This record gives sequence, structure tokens and C-alpha cells, in this order.
Amino acid sequence: MVFILKPNVEKEKIEHFILDWEQKGFSTILSVGTEHTAVCLIGNTAEVDLDHAVQTNDIISYGKRITEQYKAVNRTVHEDNTIIRVGDVNIGEGYFTVISGPCSVESEEQIIKIARSVKDSGAKILRGGAFKPRTSPYAFQGKKAEGLEMLKAAKQETGLPIVSEIMNQNQIDLFDDVDILQIGARNMQNFDLLRAVGEINKPVLLKRGLANTIEEFLMSAEYIVASGNNNVILCERGIRTFETMTRNTLDLSAIILLKQKSHLPVIADPSHAAGIRSLVAPLAKAALAVGADGIMVETHNDPAKALCDGAQSLDLLQFNELMADLKIRAAVENKEIA
Amino acid sequence: MVFILKPNVEKEKIEHFILDWEQKGFSTILSVGTEHTAVCLIGNTAEVDLDHAVQTNDIISYGKRITEQYKAVNRTVHEDNTIIRVGDVNIGEGYFTVISGPCSVESEEQIIKIARSVKDSGAKILRGGAFKPRTSPYAFQGKKAEGLEMLKAAKQETGLPIVSEIMNQNQIDLFDDVDILQIGARNMQNFDLLRAVGEINKPVLLKRGLANTIEEFLMSAEYIVASGNNNVILCERGIRTFETMTRNTLDLSAIILLKQKSHLPVIADPSHAAGIRSLVAPLAKAALAVGADGIMVETHNDPAKALCDGAQSLDLLQFNELMADLKIRAAVENKEIA
Amino acid sequence: MVFILKPNVEKEKIEHFILDWEQKGFSTILSVGTEHTAVCLIGNTAEVDLDHAVQTNDIISYGKRITEQYKAVNRTVHEDNTIIRVGDVNIGEGYFTVISGPCSVESEEQIIKIARSVKDSGAKILRGGAFKPRTSPYAFQGKKAEGLEMLKAAKQETGLPIVSEIMNQNQIDLFDDVDILQIGARNMQNFDLLRAVGEINKPVLLKRGLANTIEEFLMSAEYIVASGNNNVILCERGIRTFETMTRNTLDLSAIILLKQKSHLPVIADPSHAAGIRSLVAPLAKAALAVGADGIMVETHNDPAKALCDGAQSLDLLQFNELMADLKIRAAVENKEIA
Amino acid sequence: MVFILKPNVEKEKIEHFILDWEQKGFSTILSVGTEHTAVCLIGNTAEVDLDHAVQTNDIISYGKRITEQYKAVNRTVHEDNTIIRVGDVNIGEGYFTVISGPCSVESEEQIIKIARSVKDSGAKILRGGAFKPRTSPYAFQGKKAEGLEMLKAAKQETGLPIVSEIMNQNQIDLFDDVDILQIGARNMQNFDLLRAVGEINKPVLLKRGLANTIEEFLMSAEYIVASGNNNVILCERGIRTFETMTRNTLDLSAIILLKQKSHLPVIADPSHAAGIRSLVAPLAKAALAVGADGIMVETHNDPAKALCDGAQSLDLLQFNELMADLKIRAAVENKEIA
Repeated sequence: MVFILKPNVEKEKIEHFILDWEQKGFSTILSVGTEHTAVCLIGNTAEVDLDHAVQTNDIISYGKRITEQYKAVNRTVHEDNTIIRVGDVNIGEGYFTVISGPCSVESEEQIIKIARSVKDSGAKILRGGAFKPRTSPYAFQGKKAEGLEMLKAAKQETGLPIVSEIMNQNQIDLFDDVDILQIGARNMQNFDLLRAVGEINKPVLLKRGLANTIEEFLMSAEYIVASGNNNVILCERGIRTFETMTRNTLDLSAIILLKQKSHLPVIADPSHAAGIRSLVAPLAKAALAVGADGIMVETHNDPAKALCDGAQSLDLLQFNELMADLKIRAAVENKEIA
Repeated sequence: MVFILKPNVEKEKIEHFILDWEQKGFSTILSVGTEHTAVCLIGNTAEVDLDHAVQTNDIISYGKRITEQYKAVNRTVHEDNTIIRVGDVNIGEGYFTVISGPCSVESEEQIIKIARSVKDSGAKILRGGAFKPRTSPYAFQGKKAEGLEMLKAAKQETGLPIVSEIMNQNQIDLFDDVDILQIGARNMQNFDLLRAVGEINKPVLLKRGLANTIEEFLMSAEYIVASGNNNVILCERGIRTFETMTRNTLDLSAIILLKQKSHLPVIADPSHAAGIRSLVAPLAKAALAVGADGIMVETHNDPAKALCDGAQSLDLLQFNELMADLKIRAAVENKEIA
Repeated sequence: MVFILKPNVEKEKIEHFILDWEQKGFSTILSVGTEHTAVCLIGNTAEVDLDHAVQTNDIISYGKRITEQYKAVNRTVHEDNTIIRVGDVNIGEGYFTVISGPCSVESEEQIIKIARSVKDSGAKILRGGAFKPRTSPYAFQGKKAEGLEMLKAAKQETGLPIVSEIMNQNQIDLFDDVDILQIGARNMQNFDLLRAVGEINKPVLLKRGLANTIEEFLMSAEYIVASGNNNVILCERGIRTFETMTRNTLDLSAIILLKQKSHLPVIADPSHAAGIRSLVAPLAKAALAVGADGIMVETHNDPAKALCDGAQSLDLLQFNELMADLKIRAAVENKEIA
Repeated sequence: MVFILKPNVEKEKIEHFILDWEQKGFSTILSVGTEHTAVCLIGNTAEVDLDHAVQTNDIISYGKRITEQYKAVNRTVHEDNTIIRVGDVNIGEGYFTVISGPCSVESEEQIIKIARSVKDSGAKILRGGAFKPRTSPYAFQGKKAEGLEMLKAAKQETGLPIVSEIMNQNQIDLFDDVDILQIGARNMQNFDLLRAVGEINKPVLLKRGLANTIEEFLMSAEYIVASGNNNVILCERGIRTFETMTRNTLDLSAIILLKQKSHLPVIADPSHAAGIRSLVAPLAKAALAVGADGIMVETHNDPAKALCDGAQSLDLLQFNELMADLKIRAAVENKEIA
């Protein structure tokens, strides 16, 4: 159940209103939007008389029951789109934000070279894996803490905010200077990790699990937001199907539905979805066409020698061409490549 | 194994060349493209000495082994894109052909009304189901032969070529005046039907089965082309996955791969893929963005009262808006909405 | 809606009762069980007053609404298990019927040799493919009509009833001497074929489609039974999943649910499900353990040289061992290997 | 590459042999079986001359290349079945170990009541969730540390070893008195957790992820064993497919393949796989039939009031009946219900 408040209600009255419900045994979520403020009740609201509640409290504009299990990330609770700000970069409505960089940070020289190049091409955020979740314990596991330092050096050099994957909650301090914490597909339902990143105030890029439904994806975002962190970016990265010619199947319908059902920004990762370089550019354009708020694309200065996922990485020239193509199309969609 | 012939080889020499291989026990496929002509050998070619064959026959430009199981539909055999002509309409490279109409023909009045409207909006081909494959024997099974007559009346009235689903090979004569035979997803591996439509010379719109791989899809097209009919249009219409929020998952990556691996035109059916009206337009734009040669979109004059699949049908105004959106984007892709 | 009739109602009264409902616009299905007779109404029964109907007609024992879309195959309509009789062989409750033979009939000598051997081991029905649905048009397509003749010769020789796959409705006459018509997974939703075999009175072995739900499977059986043929045997043969180590994933849960929801006999095909010889015997035992009414197992006198599916075929000795294992376990389950 | 050592080689010689390879840059895994001891090399073994290595070192009996990515869990490295001992209970070859208890520990009274009952029926290990991974942050999350205390009280009372799910590596000390650490399906690829439980010497029950392949499952087990802990029990608990009538699809073929490819014990969880009470008993019997080393079955004293997963829980009487059924069938399979 959500109560949309009247405009300009005094803070004290809202606090009082919230306290009142909490004393009745409900949890609450306060959602402050640009258009209006809402208070969402969590708990057994079946016995709450909605009309009575609205009529007897003059700070409420109107109330609605929420049938979905996700509340805080629900568009019903927060009608306007959430825009997440990372440094000077906006992620959300009106922008098409391109994140790029190598699957794995390999050396300071490499990451700086790539960072400069993708920045010149128009990328606004630099990605780079330091801790790599790999199916095999014998595969390259990333440069770890050292990789984060290299990534920070590239940030220093270029001014690009950085995003990197965090693998467990004990690493949070290590990621202090990382601008966006990425939670990988395999950890989408690592609920203790979700709760932990929910307790800090830093943007989280949450990837959809490889066989998780759209509803489960939203419920995982709900864990983070309900723990206090509203800065969640959803990332569709392909789902596991029977098809073997692609690494995964990019579910573009999911992007449309996520944008309808939630106010959070949604981006696509065409690189991991496809697993094949030649599919990345067309899928990136398709993501823009369905209304995604951005993409995360893997690039490498020398894909053939990449320590990880070279087959799906664009080289720097290909990325530059993609950006040129995207700029033309973003204009058609009234979006700023940001 | 495929032999690409030199330009302007005399017909007789080609026939002799083919006969020669057939006498050695191979089947052959003659593929006449605009750029060059190719002869493909089917059979156990492991023991054929490719170099020797090329060197000893002066009509051959060069030869290649084909590792894929699909031969006649393989781009290796036929490098340039096949363009299929239906009346004045082109389907293939350079065009983005829009097929539209109701899931099911309901009355002559209805189908003519829809036909006129979608034509005005820019659709080039009219669709309409007469024989409907339904999961339940108690559901509406279509207007059958009578439905085909109504469809033909709409063709008469508007000049739009028509496409309708054929359910078994005994219906071929009934479909005499239908311009394109549609083979539905459930019949994608009905091999006797594939062979039967391969023996006539009429365009076939072949839908991907709901859980068939890209390779199986191409093999089904191969059945038709190997039987003598080159006019096959592939249609991606969503695959079955674990996700339940959409009817199916539109596999846009498959469109890209099909275009890479085969010379046949490929279109998308966003209506059946999504099963939800609000997803149709963005998915249609995405299909254009990944390089599809067209779309098939369900429209209805009054979707709420449709006898079949109303929830995924656009009304005529929505379709008109979609067409306006597509025209702008087709221009960016250097394609003619045809 | 189903009406369970009182015992020993005169035939005329039943006919009159049926006629009455049909005049009101409903279709009806008459289901004659060993315990009781039922009449099922098909159509919009929402407005029928069930209590009134029961109270005002003294041939009715009681009535029930059926929420499922499948009616004629629904256990609610026909509580006792259907037992299908093929020659001397029973398929259904109390029996565990083993069907065996090669994927493909290759020669008269071969099929007779296999038939004798599997009969000696305890198989009660002989299988053998004559028309083979193959993904590739260039793969061996079966011995066709000639293969059926060989199969009949083996029946002549051994007395075993025979089952073979029919690929389209025009073949029905050709299959005159075939005891059970098999409809393959790829044709599970070839509705015209289902209707055609529903109009003859011969047992049909219907395989589950490779990505069809349990409900869709029952709806396909409903097509056959609603067309007048009650003799349907359901066959679970593995579904398509993301797993690649097996050809398909045998869904043993489906067998349990099919037996709960329908009165039709259900068998398993562990050979096609697994695609790997070493999995066939354990999966066959599992099928028995979950309550299947039988299995269909591929055998070959020389699997390494089989023209089709050799990797999943048991040799005749392995089959004999499996039968010995099954006999011990069937005794535990109070079933007769028949 | 694996070297099977001759019998009774002195420890020092083995250590020297291992050191030698590690100095050449390889990692090694020492696998001590009852029949023979093996040393497995991890790294780029392509350039190692296998014959030369065997001939020049007289402690080696023979060597083999291992093509699979999993080494330490590979049956090639360790031919005999691993039997894991928990208190007096054996898990592995010759035994069919039944683990039972509630999805979630609700109170000390409840868990003791259930523990006594399932022990009487023949269960050898008690399960009970204390930390519950739930899709929704608003659902009951378990009794947490308090729940573990209740579980330990039940162990005290009945002598049954206990198993409970650990959700992150920081909880390892909390689980000190828990006999088996369960890693849930959602954490199957939480590699940091796998490594952490690999560093202690306590049995781990590793569940297959809901959409992970058999190979990925073995690779996750490899993480644990390669970190030093050999006591891994694999648990198939159903995979996610398109079918919606069951919660998941129990993949019994996977059990057979896991037993073929690995030496680790494999059990089934029919409760979570099916999600429906009436399927649990037949699937349990099927697991026994395909060669599983045990099952984990959810039981509850009052399933209708269970705080979690009541619909799939057997009541205590039903569990008792299942155990009686299993005893008869275990005897047929020459297994001891242990």
C-alpha cells in the first residue's frame, strides 16, 4: 500500500505519519521523487482500510494498493524516473550512458590506454574487472586489489568514473574509490551481499542472473533499496536458453518491462549476452531502440590477446565506430549520449 | 563443397558439370545469384580432392568446403542477399517490409477495413489467419476456406499481396491465390509439409519453432530450398524460455546470426513474441536496428473484441504511429519501408 | 462441466440427455468407464446451474465443474485408469509394457533378428521407424513404405504387435496393419494430424513435444480423444533445456503429474531423452519407480553400425539385462511386465 | 594430467615428486584413494611429455591426460567412490542416506519433535534452515543464530548429525557445531564462499544452481576440493525449465552422469525440485533407482502451518511411509538405508 502525499508537506508531519504506521507494526519506505513524495507500507496491509486512512489524514493526496511484491522499486510508488548521478554523469531518463573498458584490468598501461580511447569515442564511465568470478578455479581470477589500483590510476588520468565487480561484502572498504559497485549475474541472489551494498550510499550496477525472471530481478533490487540505497542501475546481460550459437540470449523485452514496472534506470550488456564480437554493435543499437538508458560494452586494445572474454570484445576502432552510429540514433530517440 | 563458377559460363557447360557430379553419386544444388553462380555438392565430399577439381575444370572460379549442414541456404554458397519479390513488393536487402493484419480473419468487412487502414499507414503485405492452429480443440479454429475468400476480397480491394498460414500439404490448392504461404512455428519441423511447399514456386514465410535452434531453423529452410523453392523468408517469432512475464522471448541475436549465415531475408514477429501490446512497437524498432528485413505485426480494428490474440494486437491508430516511427528510423538505416 | 451418471442407466436415456444438451448449444463427450459413465459438456458452462441440472434429472448421480481446459482426457471425467488393449497386450494400470526395437528399420533380416531377441527378453511390442523425421534433408530418411513391410514381416514372424511413426494424415491407409500409430515429438501440435488419427479407431502413441508443457501435451491428446479415439498412450521423451551433456532432459515429474491429471496410460522413452546408452537402463528403472505404465527402448543388433541413433541404442544383450532388472523391480511395484 | 602412483610409495618420495612439479610452475592436487594415490597437475600440461615423465620416475604406475576442466573431482583422478563420514553416518557407495527435517527451524519444540520422528522412521541426518535465502526481503528470513541453537538442541536430544545452509563466509564460526555446511543453489557460483568452505575440513553439501550445467556444477565442487576440502556431497535439486506445473524439473539424468564423471557422492532433493507434496515420494524412489547416494526430504509436523515451503513438505506420517517404501527398494539395489 502506498500513500502519495500532497505537495509541500512539512517534514515533521511526514515523520509523524511514518512513526504512526510503524507503531502499528508496519515497515515503511519513504520515496522522495521530484514530482511527489510517497510513503509505502510493508506488511499485512490486507486489513488496512485504504479509504479511511486517506480521508482521516490531510497530508495524503491519495492511496493505492500495490499487488506486486516489489514496493520500493515499483513505479507505482515512485512515478518519475530515477536519475542516478555519478560524478558529472547522469544515468536515466534522457540520457544514453555508455560504459566501456576491458573485461579484466591487465596492466596500468593497458587500462589507461583503453580509458583514454573510449573517453575520446564518447564513453562516460570506465569499466574494468579486478576480481573475476570464473567457472574454473584454474582460470585467471583477475588482478584483484592491484587491479583496482590500476583502475583508479586510469580514473585519475582521464577523469572517468569507474565501475568494477565486487564479489563479497568484506571487500566494500577496498572499493572505497570505485564509483559504482557492480554485482555480477552469479551473485544476483546473494542476499547478504545485496543487503550490505544497500547499507552504503553508492551506486550499484545489478546484473540480472542468468536464469532469473524479471520479477526476481526486481526483488533483488528491492533488497538493496529497502536496505536504504536508492542508487540501483539494472543491467540485462542475457539469459540462459536452449540456444547454443550465442553465449546467452539478450532479452530486450525485459528492458521494456523493467522500465514499465520500475523507476530505476536499465542498461544492457550486449557483450556478455552475445559472446560474439559481430553481434555487439547491432544489439547495442537495439538496446537504444527499446528504451534502455545505456549500455556496458567490453573493449580491448588487442582482443586477440585479452586474458578474458576476448571473443566478445570490440577493439578501440570498432568501439569508436559504434559510438558514431549510436550518436546518430540517440538523436532520433531524443537522448543525449552521456 | 561449393564451386563458385566463373562469370558468363554457358548454360550447357553448367548442366554438363552438374550431370558429371550426379553421376558420381552426389546431389547438387544450383544457386544462381546476381553476382555469381554456384554449384553445391551434397553427399560424402570428404574424399573429393577440391584443388584437383578446381584445377581440372575451367568453368570453376574457386571452390570451398562447407562445414555447416545447411548448404543451399548457406551464405557461403550464395554470397549476395536473396531478394524475394511478391507482386510489386520486395523483401530483402535495402527494404524493411511491413506485413500487417489481424491474427484471424473474422469477416469480409473487418479484413477490408483493416487492410485499407494498414495500407494507408504504409504496410505492403496483408496478413490474416484463416486456418488457426490452437492449443485447444475447443478454441476458435479460424474461418477456414471462407476466411481465405475474405482475405482474397481484401486483396482485390486494396491490391495488397496476402499471406496466410497453411496447416497441411493437402491445402496447397486452396491457397492458390494466396501470395505467401506461412508455415507456423508448430510446423517448423513438419518435414512433409516443408517438402510439399518446396515443390511449388511460391514464397514461403517460415516461422522458427518455439524451441528450435538457429541451426535447426536453417535446416528446415534447407528442406524447402533443396526441394526446389528458393523463395523462403525466415521469421523469428520468439522462443520459449523460463521467463513468464512475456509470451515468448524475442531472440534478436538470432536475426543477426541468420543474416550472417544465410542469404535468405529474415523478418521478426514482435506480436507473437511479446504477447503484450506495449512491447510490440519497441521490439519492432529493435528488429529494424539489428538488421531485420521486415516485421509482421498484428493489428485489429477493435483489439478488445478480437477472436484471437487481442492482447498483443495494435489498434489501427497505434499501428499508424508505429509506422511513422519506423519511417524515421528506416531512413537512418538506409532502408526503404516497402 | 461433467455429470457422473447413476449406474445402469438405459442407453436411450443417456442419448436423450446428450441430445438435450446439444440442442442447447453444447458439445458433449460421453465417457464410458468400468466404474461409471460420465457426460462432459464443452462450451460456455459458466451460466449452467449445476445444482439445478443435477436435481432435475434423475439419471445423474452428481456433477462437477472442470476448471482445466482438457476435458475428455481429464481424470475428473473418467476416474478409473484407461487400459488400452493391443492384440494380447495391455497398456495401463497394473502393467509395465516394454516396447523395443531399432530406431530405424534397416532390413527384413535385421528387424526379424531384433524382434525375436527382444521378444525372448520380454518385450511385448516391437518398434521400428520406417518414415524418419530428420533435422537434415540429407540424412537417412528411413526405408519408408518398404520399411513398413519389413516391420510387418517381423510381426508375422514373432506375433509381436508393431508401432511405427506416421508423419502425415495421407499415410493412414499405408499404416493399416500397424497396430499403434506413433506421433512424434515434432508433430505433437500438428493439429490436423491429431484430428485425423482421432477419426480412426486405432491406438495412438503420442510423444510430448520437445518444449511443450504438460498442459499442452494433454490438450493435444484432447484433440485425438475429442475426435472420437480414446486409445491414446502418452509418452514422455525428454524436454529441451539448457543442459547440453544429455540430448534432452527426461522429465519424470511429468509422468507423475500426467497420471494424476489424466486417466490415459503414460510411458517413457529413455533412449531419446538421454541420447547416451549408459543412461537408458537407470532412467528406465526410474520411470518404473515413478509409476509409468511402460517404456519404449531402442535396441539394435549392432549399435555401432546403426543408420540412426546408434549412440543411444542398447545392444540385445544389454536389453536382456535391463529386462531382468526390470522384472525384479516390477514385482516390487506390483506390476506385470507385459 | 594425472599420475597414478604405484602402491606403497613412501610419503617423502611423493612430496619430492610434487615439489618437483610445483617448481616447474604447475599446481598439484594430491588425491589419496583407498585403492591408489594420484597426483594431478594443473596448468599448461600440453607441453609435458607424458611417456617421458612416466618412464623417468619409478614411483609412477601410469599417467593419463585429463580433457575435462575438473580435475580433483574427476573420476579419472580418483577411481573409487568417495565415502564421506559424518559422525556414524556414511554417505556414498553402498548407502542410501536420508536427510530430513523442516525447510525452516521454527522453534526448539518443533525441531526436536520432527527430529525424533524422522529418526524413528530411519532418517540419519537432520536438516533445518536457520538462515533462509528468500526472493523477497519481506519474507521470513529464518530464525538465524537462534535457529542454529535450536537445531543443535535437536542434535543433542537425538544424536542426529545436522546440516544447515550457510549464506556467507563470515558465518563459518557460527556453524562450528553444524556437521554439514549446505551451500544453496543461489550460491553455487559464489566462488569466494566456495573457497572459504574449501579451507576448512568439514563436509559440504553443494546444491546445483537452478540453471547451471553439470559441468559448471562439477567446477564449483572443484573450487572446494582444490582449496583442500575433499568432503563434498553433490545435490541435484531441480533445474529451471519452461515447465510451470512443477517448481523445477528434477534432472535425474544428471545424477547418473555426475556419478560417472566424479567420485563424489550425489544426492537428490525431490522436495525443492517438485514443489508439490505428491511428487516427493515417487521422485525419491526414482532417485534411488538411478543410483543416487541419498536424498534430502523436507518434513514438517504441520505442513499447512509451515513458515516456509509447506506445500512441498511431507508430514511425519507420510515420511514414515516413504521410508518403508524406500527400505524395500534399497534392498533390491543392494544399498543400506543409512
